[in-house]
Amino acid sequence: MKLIIVKDYQEMSQVASEILLGEMHDQHRKNISITAGATPQGIYEILVPRVKDKPYFQNVHYYNFDEIDVNGAEKRFGVTMSNLKKMYFDPAHIKQENIHALTSSNYQTQDARIQADGGLDLILMGVGADGHFCGNLPGTTKFGDLTSRINDDATPNMKDILLHEVGGVAELCPEFYVTMGPKSIMQVKKLLMVANGEKKASIVKALVDGVVTEELPATLLTTHPDFTLVIDQEAASLL
Amino acid sequence: MKLIIVKDYQEMSQVASEILLGEMHDQHRKNISITAGATPQGIYEILVPRVKDKPYFQNVHYYNFDEIDVNGAEKRFGVTMSNLKKMYFDPAHIKQENIHALTSSNYQTQDARIQADGGLDLILMGVGADGHFCGNLPGTTKFGDLTSRINDDATPNMKDILLHEVGGVAELCPEFYVTMGPKSIMQVKKLLMVANGEKKASIVKALVDGVVTEELPATLLTTHPDFTLVIDQEAASLL
Amino acid sequence: MKLIIVKDYQEMSQVASEILLGEMHDQHRKNISITAGATPQGIYEILVPRVKDKPYFQNVHYYNFDEIDVNGAEKRFGVTMSNLKKMYFDPAHIKQENIHALTSSNYQTQDARIQADGGLDLILMGVGADGHFCGNLPGTTKFGDLTSRINDDATPNMKDILLHEVGGVAELCPEFYVTMGPKSIMQVKKLLMVANGEKKASIVKALVDGVVTEELPATLLTTHPDFTLVIDQEAASLL
Amino acid sequence: MKLIIVKDYQEMSQVASEILLGEMHDQHRKNISITAGATPQGIYEILVPRVKDKPYFQNVHYYNFDEIDVNGAEKRFGVTMSNLKKMYFDPAHIKQENIHALTSSNYQTQDARIQADGGLDLILMGVGADGHFCGNLPGTTKFGDLTSRINDDATPNMKDILLHEVGGVAELCPEFYVTMGPKSIMQVKKLLMVANGEKKASIVKALVDGVVTEELPATLLTTHPDFTLVIDQEAASLL
Repeated sequence: MKLIIVKDYQEMSQVASEILLGEMHDQHRKNISITAGATPQGIYEILVPRVKDKPYFQNVHYYNFDEIDVNGAEKRFGVTMSNLKKMYFDPAHIKQENIHALTSSNYQTQDARIQADGGLDLILMGVGADGHFCGNLPGTTKFGDLTSRINDDATPNMKDILLHEVGGVAELCPEFYVTMGPKSIMQVKKLLMVANGEKKASIVKALVDGVVTEELPATLLTTHPDFTLVIDQEAASLL
Repeated sequence: MKLIIVKDYQEMSQVASEILLGEMHDQHRKNISITAGATPQGIYEILVPRVKDKPYFQNVHYYNFDEIDVNGAEKRFGVTMSNLKKMYFDPAHIKQENIHALTSSNYQTQDARIQADGGLDLILMGVGADGHFCGNLPGTTKFGDLTSRINDDATPNMKDILLHEVGGVAELCPEFYVTMGPKSIMQVKKLLMVANGEKKASIVKALVDGVVTEELPATLLTTHPDFTLVIDQEAASLL
Repeated sequence: MKLIIVKDYQEMSQVASEILLGEMHDQHRKNISITAGATPQGIYEILVPRVKDKPYFQNVHYYNFDEIDVNGAEKRFGVTMSNLKKMYFDPAHIKQENIHALTSSNYQTQDARIQADGGLDLILMGVGADGHFCGNLPGTTKFGDLTSRINDDATPNMKDILLHEVGGVAELCPEFYVTMGPKSIMQVKKLLMVANGEKKASIVKALVDGVVTEELPATLLTTHPDFTLVIDQEAASLL
Repeated sequence: MKLIIVKDYQEMSQVASEILLGEMHDQHRKNISITAGATPQGIYEILVPRVKDKPYFQNVHYYNFDEIDVNGAEKRFGVTMSNLKKMYFDPAHIKQENIHALTSSNYQTQDARIQADGGLDLILMGVGADGHFCGNLPGTTKFGDLTSRINDDATPNMKDILLHEVGGVAELCPEFYVTMGPKSIMQVKKLLMVANGEKKASIVKALVDGVVTEELPATLLTTHPDFTLVIDQEAASLL
């Protein structure tokens, strides 16, 4: 594990972008999985103008690692893919053939498809204050799980979480979501996690202290042979 | 995880030897950690005549991953190193400068010394019917532990285990042993585990089924991105 | 460059087999290119019983690096593929889907197809007393050439060479052969060359001395970052 | 070979910086060799503020690949090291222990020292209009050379070149310079070359066309398995 403590959110985004871009410049095909959400916005602000319409990034292939497909809307993109499109794929003009969607329909073959594509080279993740990473919330998956379906009764508040994700519209709320599991993520060659702000200080402390427990799913990643954690001063405040 | 099921103990030893030799022929320095015990005897019978006095293996460096140092005998080799010397280092004429001993005195710097040497490239391990690997017996270490000291009160029967290891001579019995921890082993680039016989069938089933639990320490290794498990028919009998 | 000097042909074959098998045991797909001819016979004698009907080698894919297709016989295998089938593919029961033939018809896309397959991981080659490797005879290709067509007027004696290759039957004699070029071979991750016997002593001396000249095509390979040369005592007699 | 054609000098510097930074963020020690001269100034302008006083780059070690030591001035830095200090090492606050100087005194052990340090991971180079790279001017080294001493009579105008390099002061003019040779550079894991401006268009065309000749030393690098060439529109004008 490499711990990189930086000054602020801007430097966190800069360091993560540099790690991503370094990988993306490789001469061979590179498979990377990236994250939606608030934390990586600064990263995409750096990446978009660098990647847009640049043919030298044509060997980069993208994978989402979780998805919440809206109920009864098979033609629509899921919550994750919609966010990724808005934040990165669309403004960066990423070609459709370079985007490999995980959906509620194809999750059972996600690990096999990735392996057939040569494996993931890099994954960019955030971490939740509750210790979740990707869609691996405490109580939903076990360390040994590959890509999984998480039903709305997996945890007491999962129905609320799903409803919130679809904007509170009950008829859109799906009965499950899908996520690459802890074991799926551990197969990736290089793990990159970013965290900023005081509300992440406690989980960051757990990651650095070395405890590994399914109650804090992300702690498993600290055992990976190539795990880099980039945090700002506030997230580092309990170290 | 790559699962290799072979016919018998002899083929298991052959496959493991091939993986070891392939790594050892690299042009760059290779750091490997190997195991004592009964399981790898067939491997060393293949390796010794191949390695003995061969200058083209001079870039291979060896590390033991656990040690039981006999009480009051600082000049003697520990139980693990004594066995490795008898089975491999002495008959294969491995030079002293290529052997990097972990002892009860230097265990606290083991992880840092290995990192300074460029990291371990390969580790050869067995697995216990109780799920232990290296010196990580159930109840002694946690998944997040690096190289650790295990005291004789770590588990109810640890005093008996230690006494057995020193041949039942009470005055030789040490108060602790040392072992690279689960997190140490997960940092190794390539993990190679061998298992044979019916008594290993149950733990092998757990490894293949994908459960990951500290009650069966070796199950963590199934999440490593480069883990190869070589087993014979009997060990595979519950799959 | 790693130079491995062994006792005799048998040890040369053993070392080369170990390097091949080590690579072939990898958990991921491995693309290797192997050679026909007299030198590697000892290697295939070791490999065939080890590889035959072993499912754990199913991720190994094979590529030939040159081919002489017999005139007017489109349905027959070329000289190289026929030899490889006889020596290795048939007795080792390699599945057709794991064999990727270079022919006189598809040579122009050979480099692109290999790149699309993830690149070659390992190539096993011999070397000629004249310094040739693969089908790169002195005077036929330049260091910068990729997979090429070599016409029967490329060198003064090329017609004789081709006639000899098809058993002296004039009507079978083709007007050209194809070979991966020096630049193609330099793209391979790991180069393995074997040489034995006094007649190779002179070219081996040139390889070790460090001269790099198109008059001895194989000398280019000594600049590759991962080149291993395995030779017996007789081939080493001028060092 | 990966060819990256960019808009201008600024984008060339940006792409090269991204490749360098991506490598430098690795968790393990990284050995990189960098170049002095006019071309990389834009790169160092990007790197200096990013690297300065950042502890997360402490595992990066630097090597110069050529040196012109001023006559009779053993305590002074050579021409290359002086330039690197001015452009990068001093403003970026690189620690002395991370700088590994090649000098006219230690050049004979340069290749062995680098190998003992684990090999070079990345080299950043420019290319001359005459096809030179590092100190490998046409007529000074052969493709098979490791780190070499180039005397002032190596080529007809070498005395003038050396005099120019020491500012035209005759008493400072050395009788030789030293450079890592073509074979030394081919051992590096990743080669990165930058070129801009019309005066480089001709050598760039030669690099892309695939000719490999000692008269244009840099052409050898096009055979390396991991060679990236970053050029601006003007340098690409003959493609």
